Amino acid sequence: MTTKDAIDLGEFRFESGESIPSLEVAYETYGEFTGSAESGCASEPEKPASNAVLVCHALTGSSHVARRPDAGGDTAGQARAWWGDVVGPGKAIDTSEYYVVCANAPGSCYGTSGPPSENPETGEPYGTDFPPVTVGDWTRAQRRLLDELGVGRLHAVVGGSVGGMNVLDWLRRYPDDVDRAAVVASAARLDAQCLALDTVARRAITSDPDWNGGHYYGGPEPEAGLARARQIGHIMYLSKASMAQKFGRRSAGREAVREEPPDPAAAFFPYREVESYLDYQAEKFVDRFDANSYLYMTRAMDDFDLSAGYESDADALAAFEGELLLLSFTGDWHFTVEQSEALAEAARSADVDVAHHVVESDHGHDAFLVEPEKVGPPLSELLSTGLGGRTISDTDAGTDEPSSFAPVHTSLFSR
Amino acid sequence: MTTKDAIDLGEFRFESGESIPSLEVAYETYGEFTGSAESGCASEPEKPASNAVLVCHALTGSSHVARRPDAGGDTAGQARAWWGDVVGPGKAIDTSEYYVVCANAPGSCYGTSGPPSENPETGEPYGTDFPPVTVGDWTRAQRRLLDELGVGRLHAVVGGSVGGMNVLDWLRRYPDDVDRAAVVASAARLDAQCLALDTVARRAITSDPDWNGGHYYGGPEPEAGLARARQIGHIMYLSKASMAQKFGRRSAGREAVREEPPDPAAAFFPYREVESYLDYQAEKFVDRFDANSYLYMTRAMDDFDLSAGYESDADALAAFEGELLLLSFTGDWHFTVEQSEALAEAARSADVDVAHHVVESDHGHDAFLVEPEKVGPPLSELLSTGLGGRTISDTDAGTDEPSSFAPVHTSLFSR
Repeated sequence: MTTKDAIDLGEFRFESGESIPSLEVAYETYGEFTGSAESGCASEPEKPASNAVLVCHALTGSSHVARRPDAGGDTAGQARAWWGDVVGPGKAIDTSEYYVVCANAPGSCYGTSGPPSENPETGEPYGTDFPPVTVGDWTRAQRRLLDELGVGRLHAVVGGSVGGMNVLDWLRRYPDDVDRAAVVASAARLDAQCLALDTVARRAITSDPDWNGGHYYGGPEPEAGLARARQIGHIMYLSKASMAQKFGRRSAGREAVREEPPDPAAAFFPYREVESYLDYQAEKFVDRFDANSYLYMTRAMDDFDLSAGYESDADALAAFEGELLLLSFTGDWHFTVEQSEALAEAARSADVDVAHHVVESDHGHDAFLVEPEKVGPPLSELLSTGLGGRTISDTDAGTDEPSSFAPVHTSLFSR
Repeated sequence: MTTKDAIDLGEFRFESGESIPSLEVAYETYGEFTGSAESGCASEPEKPASNAVLVCHALTGSSHVARRPDAGGDTAGQARAWWGDVVGPGKAIDTSEYYVVCANAPGSCYGTSGPPSENPETGEPYGTDFPPVTVGDWTRAQRRLLDELGVGRLHAVVGGSVGGMNVLDWLRRYPDDVDRAAVVASAARLDAQCLALDTVARRAITSDPDWNGGHYYGGPEPEAGLARARQIGHIMYLSKASMAQKFGRRSAGREAVREEPPDPAAAFFPYREVESYLDYQAEKFVDRFDANSYLYMTRAMDDFDLSAGYESDADALAAFEGELLLLSFTGDWHFTVEQSEALAEAARSADVDVAHHVVESDHGHDAFLVEPEKVGPPLSELLSTGLGGRTISDTDAGTDEPSSFAPVHTSLFSR
């Protein structure tokens, strides 16, 4: 059973201190809520264990994490089922076993309140009058949504990229509500290089005259700025190796789709495949995403710092008594293996049960989306078995080698 | 003796096939031209050996490579002496010994003809009616300038970044005119990732409404677009490690210099040091560089491919009988150590006398400008001794280990 719905959570006070009278949250659910997990492994949880799995989307994702039979053949104009090969019946996050919930984050533009939503006080879109949004606001909105759905304790919370930061926020904010967690291609905080690229991306939007201080709805939209921002993002999501392989220096073998005004001196040079790719991605994105939401979502990501309000990352994680799986990808320079390892070390020093599973991949940050065959098995095993699962490796192989137990699950992953 | 001058080279036909009636080239010279090197090492050169060293500037450099006594205390508004700690009296490229020539490249905006120059046919700036420019055009203009100066054969040609591509073009185009060459922080061609970033940078300019198809002179200039382009560049010039060290995630501790229109939702978040740095760099750059020239210069860089018109990189280098030093920097992701090593292998397979000297540095691509103490010694030794110099290492240590001879020069580099 799948549902696609939106709920009005009423007044919502953001971490900035600002409030809106009515926070609408768009969400989807997949599978049946049973209220109790197959194996309740935590000792005396305050809330009863369940089969609920919360999935946290990345920067420009939506609640549409898995394919829905009722979605029709096409979901153009909305984010596609962004983890359709990982979440679904018989998939790694098996919706015939788990009750999967995915909600669009506040500040985004896929049904949850954000800058493009109507401000009830004015009847106009909020624009930049929408309160600033943090990852913590996402978590708090998710918690209230789950309360409304009758879900107390989560069997697991799983997220990739900034969605992984969302997971980390769950672990420090509601440590008793989560049995297992997977932080995929993420980090305790962005590094200076990524902060810099995000800054330039935002400036591309805000220096587009059509941005107009964020109040562009009903008029021309800052498409050029948003296109540049997205192109910078795409470069961050790929690796040097994957770009060399996908595009190299090859000419696209045709004329560029020229912008107005034309660029006469450019015509002597080839229109390269890499340009064509970036132009195509930008064109698609401008149609599907809101420029203000891009500002809001990237600011939330940039602002997230696991240790904020705590003594350290370890201190922030110390209250979490469940199991934590970190997945990182060797070709990812947006969220690096080193950052995941630093996070693993923080968790270890806080006596959190953690495994850091490194995936060999040339696909850069995109790997967590485009290599489901590598991402799925450890996630599946985390949900079914926990960190003892056979396909889950750990960089800290010296202590408590996880693959040394639970061999009984081997057959699960030969498919 | 230093001179700062400009010369009209008359009609110039660009590689694109287009011509302009008069190519003006701004150049500076340092030191005295002797017409013969201290040690003529090449056998039977067609042109007599000399003490002339051509230095090729990088993307936004000028002819002002070294400090000039007559330049006054300040060169604001122009590129500063961009290699002032490498080139000069008593410096690594010692202008009391060598006659150093540096010319601003066609297409740039520091005195040599380019888009901001007056089109004699219209009396207006060329804008994008200026012919497309290639690295080969730079080399050909340099060759004609040197002819005018009476310099035939060069003791050495040295350049960093795209200036290193300029050096490589010399080696394939005029192999008999060069005794020694240094290619610093460069490559045989840009990779797809850098092509992508350059594309986004150019789009930032051309999608700025003030760009106006390149005909903005006398009106508002595309400052926002050029600012974004330069900020992307700066991120390419630094490494993850250097950005983490220089800026981390620290707040700049003050309000952002807000653009108009203001960005109300941004005020909740800190204005970080990395943003402040990028804003400062962009502001300076917009004052000193021309947006069309940025388009022209990056296109020339992107277009350069050593093997174009040849069977391979090795084939392109095969006619060069002098000595070739490649310097690369471990933290440089714009022009990587791997790219220099591939170039070294091409040179070795063409029996070119080459050494690839890898410099340990966290400074990213900027290292070639900001670490003169690491760049200077091997360059100095190349000029005085050749590749046999003691401070010059080679990745191909198995054969012809250069450090095994010429110990007599040790004392030179202990200073």
